[in-house]
Amino acid sequence: MEFEKYIRDIPDFPEKGIVFKDITTLLINSEVFSKVIDKMAESYKKKKIDKVVGIESRGFIFGGMLSYILGAGFVPARKAGKLPHKTIRESYSLEYGESIIELHEDSIKKGDKILLVDDLLATGGTAEAVVKLITRLGGEISGIEFLIELDFLNGREKLDGKKIHSLIHY
Amino acid sequence: MEFEKYIRDIPDFPEKGIVFKDITTLLINSEVFSKVIDKMAESYKKKKIDKVVGIESRGFIFGGMLSYILGAGFVPARKAGKLPHKTIRESYSLEYGESIIELHEDSIKKGDKILLVDDLLATGGTAEAVVKLITRLGGEISGIEFLIELDFLNGREKLDGKKIHSLIHY
Repeated sequence: MEFEKYIRDIPDFPEKGIVFKDITTLLINSEVFSKVIDKMAESYKKKKIDKVVGIESRGFIFGGMLSYILGAGFVPARKAGKLPHKTIRESYSLEYGESIIELHEDSIKKGDKILLVDDLLATGGTAEAVVKLITRLGGEISGIEFLIELDFLNGREKLDGKKIHSLIHY
Repeated sequence: MEFEKYIRDIPDFPEKGIVFKDITTLLINSEVFSKVIDKMAESYKKKKIDKVVGIESRGFIFGGMLSYILGAGFVPARKAGKLPHKTIRESYSLEYGESIIELHEDSIKKGDKILLVDDLLATGGTAEAVVKLITRLGGEISGIEFLIELDFLNGREKLDGKKIHSLIHY
């Protein structure tokens, strides 16, 4: 299935010169959306995954479903100040300035097998920060699933050595 | 199953005097989380649901899974400025000031049967605003599912006449 034909291009969003990849046109189509999730889950069904980590906020949509299918717990990686209990945090660079991402420090145990998921791999800064957090807590990353990868931004290089899979490449 | 024993109380979060209901301790337990989703889906499995609307951002976790199980599309209701295409919007009151919630105007068609989902029913302001948006687009609300309902805040009154179900009551 050609998943990319269900993605809508939005020129000049969120700012001039950027073509935003709108995934809502894919999510709304239940048949296509189910196939996306099944594809993401495919290579993990025979492995033991303890936790699926989803990155706020579109990663929650995919992460919740994958945790259900794989019989794993769900762990949200959230922006600074959103998680209410004790957290660990990493900062990462954005085009202008930087941002912070957090995990609850009791969300992952040493040796937990982790599947990390987000909608988009762009420069890889966010995913790299979350990989660091998972690793600091002793989690072992079994793989990273993205719906979309913007190949020309080379985000994959920041996640060197990890098993990365994206369903759509630009 | 007593779901409430998997919810963690966080005193004085996000501000002094408020006891925050932390659901991450439930999400992390795959067995409990699966049961929550199955309970939420239970009364809709024999009905036709066209779209599940999840409210940003914890509603995405439950909404994604429910759409998968029910064979429905997923529609995110998001805070102002996050949805890239043409939107309709409603404002709603918070304790201090107000906030805005949006739907893509092409996300729901006239006559679509909608299941609305969020993690928490508190004062009901957000859910009421999303109900208005769905109704403006011609959607018919088959039901609203919450993980937690804070009964003492009477949020249910704002959603009068709708089929509302919450798994945990305080």
